[in-house]
Amino acid sequence: MLGKSQAKYIQSLGQKKLRDQEGMFIAEAPKIVGELLASAKSHIHKLYALHDWIEEHHNKLEGIDLVEVNETDLQRISQLTTSNRVLAIVKKFKIPETIAIKDTVSLVLDTIQDPGNLGTIIRIADWFGIEQIVCSNDCADMYNPKVVQSTMGSIARVKMFYTDLAEWIAQQHDAVVYAAVLEGKDVMAMEKVNEGLIVIGNESKGISPAIMKLVNVKINIPRKGKAESLNAAVAAGIILSHVV
Amino acid sequence: MLGKSQAKYIQSLGQKKLRDQEGMFIAEAPKIVGELLASAKSHIHKLYALHDWIEEHHNKLEGIDLVEVNETDLQRISQLTTSNRVLAIVKKFKIPETIAIKDTVSLVLDTIQDPGNLGTIIRIADWFGIEQIVCSNDCADMYNPKVVQSTMGSIARVKMFYTDLAEWIAQQHDAVVYAAVLEGKDVMAMEKVNEGLIVIGNESKGISPAIMKLVNVKINIPRKGKAESLNAAVAAGIILSHVV
Repeated sequence: MLGKSQAKYIQSLGQKKLRDQEGMFIAEAPKIVGELLASAKSHIHKLYALHDWIEEHHNKLEGIDLVEVNETDLQRISQLTTSNRVLAIVKKFKIPETIAIKDTVSLVLDTIQDPGNLGTIIRIADWFGIEQIVCSNDCADMYNPKVVQSTMGSIARVKMFYTDLAEWIAQQHDAVVYAAVLEGKDVMAMEKVNEGLIVIGNESKGISPAIMKLVNVKINIPRKGKAESLNAAVAAGIILSHVV
Repeated sequence: MLGKSQAKYIQSLGQKKLRDQEGMFIAEAPKIVGELLASAKSHIHKLYALHDWIEEHHNKLEGIDLVEVNETDLQRISQLTTSNRVLAIVKKFKIPETIAIKDTVSLVLDTIQDPGNLGTIIRIADWFGIEQIVCSNDCADMYNPKVVQSTMGSIARVKMFYTDLAEWIAQQHDAVVYAAVLEGKDVMAMEKVNEGLIVIGNESKGISPAIMKLVNVKINIPRKGKAESLNAAVAAGIILSHVV
C-alpha cells in the first residue's frame, strides 16, 4: 500500500531542488533497477514494485526496503509516460574527491542541457571505458529522471563532477585539451589518445569562447552531406570510437 | 487570426492516420522551417508565424500562404512543450520510385521505434552523405512531429522508404549487407565501403532473425567498459564515420 504523503514525496524527487535537499533520486524500469541492484545495491533506499517483478527477483532483494504496489499506484509515482514494473528511490553517489588526469581520458561537457543527450553521453562513456565526466555547472542535472533513464544503468559506473569548467580546465596545466569543432584535424587521421580532456560543446551554441581559448587540439568529424551539425551525443560517440 | 477549425485541423496532424489521409505533416521552429524554406519551399503548404519572425524573413516568403498568429495561438497549435515562433504545414515528400543500390551506401533500419532516434539517424545520414534510408514498416513514422524535429531539417534531403524489410533485402542479390552486432568484425579495422546496405537494429531486440539471416558482414563496435549496448543512433553514427 502506498500512502498519500509517500506518493507526494516520490513525485517531489522529479525536482532538482528536492533531490538536492534529500540526497535522493529516482530510477525506474527493470533494466536500470537491475543494473543498480547489481552494481550499487547499497545505494538503493527503497523499492516500489509490482508483485510479479518481486517474485522474479526475490533472490536479489535481501536487505532491500521493499513496497509492493499495484499498477495504479506505480503509475501515480512514475515519471515515465507508462510506468514499468519497478521504481527505486536511490541515494545519490558520493562526489569523488579528486579528478584523475594522469594516464586517463576524461569527457568534459560544456553546457549539455538536454537530459536525453547527457544520459546518452554517460552511457557512451561507459561503453568506451571512460571513467569520469566533468560537467559545467549549467549542464543538465545527472539525477534528472530523464538523464537517469537514458544512461540505461551506466550512471552507477561513471564518475560525474560539476564545476566551473573554464576555471577548472585552466588549472590543468599538464592536460592536453581536445575539442570537437566544425574545422579542425580530421578525427579519422587522429592517433589514439591515452591521456587528455575531450570537450563536447552545447549543440546550438557549441563550445563557449572562454573554454575554446583553452583548447589545444581541434578535432573535426568530416562532413560529406549537408546537415549543419551532429547531435552532441553522436559526436561524442564518434570521437571516442576513433581516439580511445 | 486563427479559427477554431483550423487549429483543430493542425492539431489533428499530430496523428499518423490524419497525416496519411491529408498527405501533410507539421514542422516547427526557425531552424527547421528555415531549412525547409531553403531546400523544399514548394512543399510548404501554409505557415503560421509570429509578427517578428515574419518581419525577419519577409524576403524569403514570396508565394507562401502565411498566417500571422500571436503566442497564445501558436502554443495552441504547437506540438512542442514551448512553441517557437513558427509552425509549417508541409506536404509529404514524394516516395521515390526506385531505390538505388549500385555505387551507393544505404542505411537500413530494422524496427527503430523511438521517434528521437529515427530523426537523429536521418540527420546523421545527411551529415555523412547517405542519400537514402530503407525502413521496416514498423519503424516510427518519418512524419511524426518528434522525428521531424530531431532531423533538424535533414528530412528534406534524405530519401526515405518503408517496406517489408526481410523481403526487400532478400531481393537485392548483388548487395553486400552489413550489420552492427555485439560480435563481429572490429569497425576500426574495416575498409571503406562504397556500396552496400548497413542494417541498424532495434535497440532492445537488436536485428530480427529473418534479417540477420541475410547479413553478409557483421560489424562490431569494440567495447572497453561495461555498458550493455549503445544507443541505436550513436551506433549508426560511429559505423558511418568509420566505413563511409
